[in-house]
Amino acid sequence: MQDDGNYLGPLSFTPIGVIHSPFTKTAGMPIQPNGARGIRGTVDIFEEYRDGLKDIEGFSRIILIYAFHRCRSSQLTVTPFLDTTPRGVFATRAPCRPNPIGFSTVRQILVRGTTLVVEDVDVLDGTPLLDLKPYVPAFDSYPDASAGWLEQVANDAESVRSDKRFK
Amino acid sequence: MQDDGNYLGPLSFTPIGVIHSPFTKTAGMPIQPNGARGIRGTVDIFEEYRDGLKDIEGFSRIILIYAFHRCRSSQLTVTPFLDTTPRGVFATRAPCRPNPIGFSTVRQILVRGTTLVVEDVDVLDGTPLLDLKPYVPAFDSYPDASAGWLEQVANDAESVRSDKRFK
Repeated sequence: MQDDGNYLGPLSFTPIGVIHSPFTKTAGMPIQPNGARGIRGTVDIFEEYRDGLKDIEGFSRIILIYAFHRCRSSQLTVTPFLDTTPRGVFATRAPCRPNPIGFSTVRQILVRGTTLVVEDVDVLDGTPLLDLKPYVPAFDSYPDASAGWLEQVANDAESVRSDKRFK
Repeated sequence: MQDDGNYLGPLSFTPIGVIHSPFTKTAGMPIQPNGARGIRGTVDIFEEYRDGLKDIEGFSRIILIYAFHRCRSSQLTVTPFLDTTPRGVFATRAPCRPNPIGFSTVRQILVRGTTLVVEDVDVLDGTPLLDLKPYVPAFDSYPDASAGWLEQVANDAESVRSDKRFK
């Protein structure tokens, strides 16, 4: 990245791999990993990054950071899948955000070369992967955090599916 | 983003705000939010995104996705702050990764206009913010996930500080 003291211009990232899943259309998808339990997919890391995968197999969950590549525009106020009230986009997990970056904490099943077989996949087939990190409960798990407007409805994500509203 | 069926080229994102913290140098910093308890900072969202902040105040933790803007190069194998053994970069949370994207789950204290006052800030002052999401335990908390090589040492992140090894 640039080093002119101004880091607030556009930043460019190149995908390190591709996520494959059974979901080829945005409508009808699970909207969170807890609505995708047992749904299997693969994370295919490009060959040039193979050495970066060493030691990844010890983690039962991994964090996928990816681009919501089908989003063509964003709104600052959205009506989420789980609600009927418009909410500020940063208070939601809606895909079409000013920077359409998603992350999902998926279950890692096994590693086969540069392919990670995962479950609880709530992403579209062909999604470009930007980064992969280990999920570490000591860093990432806050079971008692309060969840604002999602407090009462977050568990509905286990059954609610997406529709065509975000694209 | 492009819509030519090839989403695997470079993707560009423009910061939505800036994170401010007491940390102006990479050496000597906390390496995770659990090593930064009570350390206060601000997340200053650019005015044009103000409407996206509606409803954010109900969440006790928020997820900051940002660029590790001081990283100039990356290696695929790194010796992490918490270990003496080289590890694959994707099995670590080291900042200088092929795509230097970081995320931290910080405590939200209060919202004042477009400024979020936060605690447990483990990021450098001036860090460009790419996205802001609500932390939702039903989506994000997996207290029983196994943590591979970090299993025994993750809690050391409460006291270990960074040095100059990543830049």
